[in-house]
Amino acid sequence: MKHTIQVLVENKFGVLARVSSLFSARGYNIDSLAVGRTQDPTLSCMTIVVEAENERILEQIKKQLHKLIDVFTVIDLTKRPHIDKELFLVKLELRRPDDKIKLSQIEKNFNVRKLHEEADTVIIEFCGGYEEIRSFRSEIKSLEIKELIRSGRIAIAK
Amino acid sequence: MKHTIQVLVENKFGVLARVSSLFSARGYNIDSLAVGRTQDPTLSCMTIVVEAENERILEQIKKQLHKLIDVFTVIDLTKRPHIDKELFLVKLELRRPDDKIKLSQIEKNFNVRKLHEEADTVIIEFCGGYEEIRSFRSEIKSLEIKELIRSGRIAIAK
Repeated sequence: MKHTIQVLVENKFGVLARVSSLFSARGYNIDSLAVGRTQDPTLSCMTIVVEAENERILEQIKKQLHKLIDVFTVIDLTKRPHIDKELFLVKLELRRPDDKIKLSQIEKNFNVRKLHEEADTVIIEFCGGYEEIRSFRSEIKSLEIKELIRSGRIAIAK
Repeated sequence: MKHTIQVLVENKFGVLARVSSLFSARGYNIDSLAVGRTQDPTLSCMTIVVEAENERILEQIKKQLHKLIDVFTVIDLTKRPHIDKELFLVKLELRRPDDKIKLSQIEKNFNVRKLHEEADTVIIEFCGGYEEIRSFRSEIKSLEIKELIRSGRIAIAK
């Protein structure tokens, strides 16, 4: 099962390295990580998604995170009502005759915006939650993906 | 000046810790970092935003990143035409009489979606580039922000 862990940390150098080392030292691969500023300029928020094959080890990691001097709170959002979203930037090449029709279908069905168009290349932005991402990814597969950049999941408690 | 560095890495544990250590070892604070999967399941893409007070040290960091065994490419997108976007999740409390009017004004002017509403609390999603973020943040300040989660900037070359 995937866990979404939210870690509120002091906004200073070295914290990210210390937090990510805690995971890698225990052989935990981070699925995605997004860290950015918050409404408080002294704090940053990390949203970390991990596949917890072993819940006991994850509990240990959370305890160790709590002990780090620059960490304020550690919340496992998976256990609370929350909303999660992720941002995608996708560069597509539309060369086949029906590629444009396929794309406009995707634009209609998903929260997608066209950002740039040049010759056969189109850059789109997509934003969605877990289930929407699954369908979006399966739809987009029928087009030629030149580049796909993801923000990693971010989440907020309801 | 802020630099947007895109690092394509092998999707395995420890890479994130090694990359972030390189920055912190040289006293470089990462402004934001977003790491997620790409169209290739074996690769992850990191978008790192740093304030480069010292361009020479940044050049050294980029060279050292290149040397890491799990790093495939390091691109300073700041030097190329690119699009950057960031995702925000914001929890607002609308208690004052004109808060709802202010919010609908913000919804009209920005790429904003209302995700959740419960009593006086509203959760919105906002997605924008550098300049849009500046105006969005200054607009949203007039409302009571309970929580603000950012994905960190992601970017794609044109």
